[in-house]
Amino acid sequence: MQHQRGEREETAASGRQGRMTSFQLSAMEEMVEKFLDAAARGDLTQVSTLLTNVPSLINQTAHSGWTALMLAARNGHYSVVEKLLSHGCDKFSVNSSSQTAYDIAKFWGHGHISNLLGRTDEGCQRVLPGSGLSPQENYFSRETLDRLSGKRTDKVWLEAKRSDPDTVYLLFSNLSPMVSSSQEDGSAGDELKLCRFRYKAVKDLLEELSTVLIFIGVEKRRNPSSYSSQTEESVCEPPAWFAISTNEDAGDLLKRCREKNCSFPKTPNRELLKLNEEEAGVVAQARSVLAWHSRYSFCPTCGSSTSLEEGGYKRSCLNSECRSLQGVHNTCYPRVDPVVIMLVIHPDGNQCLLGRKKIFPVGLFSCLAGFVEPGETIEDAVRREVEEESGVKVGPVQYISCQPWPMPSNLMIGCIAVAMSTDIRVDENEIEEARWFPRQQVIESLVRGALPAFVIPPRQTIAHQLIRHWISMHSNL
Amino acid sequence: MQHQRGEREETAASGRQGRMTSFQLSAMEEMVEKFLDAAARGDLTQVSTLLTNVPSLINQTAHSGWTALMLAARNGHYSVVEKLLSHGCDKFSVNSSSQTAYDIAKFWGHGHISNLLGRTDEGCQRVLPGSGLSPQENYFSRETLDRLSGKRTDKVWLEAKRSDPDTVYLLFSNLSPMVSSSQEDGSAGDELKLCRFRYKAVKDLLEELSTVLIFIGVEKRRNPSSYSSQTEESVCEPPAWFAISTNEDAGDLLKRCREKNCSFPKTPNRELLKLNEEEAGVVAQARSVLAWHSRYSFCPTCGSSTSLEEGGYKRSCLNSECRSLQGVHNTCYPRVDPVVIMLVIHPDGNQCLLGRKKIFPVGLFSCLAGFVEPGETIEDAVRREVEEESGVKVGPVQYISCQPWPMPSNLMIGCIAVAMSTDIRVDENEIEEARWFPRQQVIESLVRGALPAFVIPPRQTIAHQLIRHWISMHSNL
Repeated sequence: MQHQRGEREETAASGRQGRMTSFQLSAMEEMVEKFLDAAARGDLTQVSTLLTNVPSLINQTAHSGWTALMLAARNGHYSVVEKLLSHGCDKFSVNSSSQTAYDIAKFWGHGHISNLLGRTDEGCQRVLPGSGLSPQENYFSRETLDRLSGKRTDKVWLEAKRSDPDTVYLLFSNLSPMVSSSQEDGSAGDELKLCRFRYKAVKDLLEELSTVLIFIGVEKRRNPSSYSSQTEESVCEPPAWFAISTNEDAGDLLKRCREKNCSFPKTPNRELLKLNEEEAGVVAQARSVLAWHSRYSFCPTCGSSTSLEEGGYKRSCLNSECRSLQGVHNTCYPRVDPVVIMLVIHPDGNQCLLGRKKIFPVGLFSCLAGFVEPGETIEDAVRREVEEESGVKVGPVQYISCQPWPMPSNLMIGCIAVAMSTDIRVDENEIEEARWFPRQQVIESLVRGALPAFVIPPRQTIAHQLIRHWISMHSNL
Repeated sequence: MQHQRGEREETAASGRQGRMTSFQLSAMEEMVEKFLDAAARGDLTQVSTLLTNVPSLINQTAHSGWTALMLAARNGHYSVVEKLLSHGCDKFSVNSSSQTAYDIAKFWGHGHISNLLGRTDEGCQRVLPGSGLSPQENYFSRETLDRLSGKRTDKVWLEAKRSDPDTVYLLFSNLSPMVSSSQEDGSAGDELKLCRFRYKAVKDLLEELSTVLIFIGVEKRRNPSSYSSQTEESVCEPPAWFAISTNEDAGDLLKRCREKNCSFPKTPNRELLKLNEEEAGVVAQARSVLAWHSRYSFCPTCGSSTSLEEGGYKRSCLNSECRSLQGVHNTCYPRVDPVVIMLVIHPDGNQCLLGRKKIFPVGLFSCLAGFVEPGETIEDAVRREVEEESGVKVGPVQYISCQPWPMPSNLMIGCIAVAMSTDIRVDENEIEEARWFPRQQVIESLVRGALPAFVIPPRQTIAHQLIRHWISMHSNL
């Protein structure tokens, strides 16, 4: 209940999880606290004065990662937000709960501030009305690398990159990447990191016939302007990344790594969620392509063997008579399966429809979902799946955001939909139970304050983000 | 130029393409004309009086299919539109240019009226702010049949439907459906209709081993409430539809049909656009699934032959050792390829980026497009494709609508995107030319008034609809 809107103002101190005694603070720390306090209270004069004297205060954070911008956004101080933005503060930084100032303003219902924070470019609002809001970034969605798809057909370039000492290799076994854990026991709170290898460490694997090698991209330049300068590009190219899938015994592979607590996750759909956003984006791409290779090594048109081409993004039939060699056909290219996933809202606006499959952990409810069929729109797929699974009829459907889900290669297309009927008749082949959940119960599950009546999927899933979107959509009502 | 906004008011007579002399009109016809004139002029009193006396006037049309609602919407008469809606007029009917009243209000910039017309349900606006606008229905998008996917595993039911005398069969040869043409010479303006067969006429084909048979669905009931009543459903089920793909010689197949001017279109991506919306929706589904069968008859996991199951929606490997038989894998199910297609808007808001491929007809420019890659979001696919093909950097991306495109099985995901840079550097492997086109030139191409400077794709394409969306988005500025 403590997160309910309007109950109390967030202070700089509460944002920092406990106040330090003043004599423990150095002069700079004191100034940071003063600055954050001023932002939280909406004291525009003090914020301005402090910034003019000490510009480096701008992005300072309290211990829980709250910036002045977040505190001002939390408490609805528009002019302070405006001032901080004009001083060039970083509006994309997140606190320890992964929230940006925009998220905070949106959640607490300060629409004028979230609009201000969401505007990526003054001009955009004019060109694309309503587009100015920051798009939701879902887990597995970050494009960490530049795919440089044009280089996939450049055999000479790829060959040179393979043996480049800067090149990064990821090792996959049974579609799981080798990762190292921060904690030995693999306990709940641990973070996983991809194990990165250099050419020398994997050279023998690359020579094996059964190895599948795919080019994932090159690291993005921090400063895009220097990258676009051609001379500089040729002088110093950013490191390329490859993914290797091999049949070598997983235990033997692990011996190659010097990092501690290495493993190949056995339950990827849970364990891969422990990567950071940057690495999750890389794995989303690599795992989907590798999954395709593992299931599509024969030509579906004639049944012959195929060979891998174009940096791992094409398989060509080895039978020279095969129809697949005439023209361009999807049989030669990786598969991406569009899936609709939707939060269905009750006509009264205050309940949402969630369901559970038999295989779900006890108490877990999630959004309904299903594959888009041939010849079907996203919106009709939403209507069909909801009616098939729950018997509920759906009217308007609104696209919210999407998420690549590399299990094995889905594109989750997230929508919010409005129900036109409310009676639930569950298709027991598909789901075990479906229910209307009142908004207040959903909020409780979302903030995990008290013991919730039911559990929703973790923040890394688009189901979670759709639920969060619905709650935040109405927080200013 | 005559379609430029605000140049003149549309009158009932001009909407009807020529005025009939009054003595040719029967009393009823006279009353219809009076009613339509009143709506076009915005005469609320006369509209109300006429409706009270003769309620059947409500959906009457002029010769070109314009209703009172369309005329009132065209000329911005809000209160008349409101009155007509309150009398229960059909807001979904279209004129001879396939425009609804909503389309007309939107195109002519009467935002308050298009909002009113778009609202499918009073409650929806509250539940899903901004969702009230009628979604764009693209060609190939209509769900004419109820897919009844649950029946695909019901062998007994499917078997009974196969020989049911009410069942409708469509014949495909080389992925084209048999159609009949309204005109013998197949000239530009002709419409195509699907040739429909009964069980008796195709019984021999069904017995051939090489025939592929897929269940497409059952006809939707006009009155959904009677369909949901179980007793009535069992008494009288709606007709089922199947599609047959056969290797029999196309010439021999054509002899089976009694209709005149029958053929199997040789250029489906042009000729299939001549079907009406209802039949196009059926073909979108059937052709995509049949295309999958024609290219995926061997198991991609082990290269063995496969057998068709579940009404044509599954292929199972015949090798009992195959990994594809353990668990659920996408290798067994039809493929749908997500494609992004986007209209990129210049940062000044007054130009859009269109490109042309070498294979395009002279003068044709269209939206850029490309396949979504594994591990990629829709928004990032838009950014990557635009930059790869044109060198233009894209910021915000907004989903507009989508379209199934059965050549062979794409899901076209239509977006509008805002450019962050303007220099064009074309990738000549992908496109021949890309240019910024000023709004006024685009409007001229859209209305095809004078000889346009360039040609845009036909209305059946989502590229056309995205361009139209952009123009209408700003028509009220």
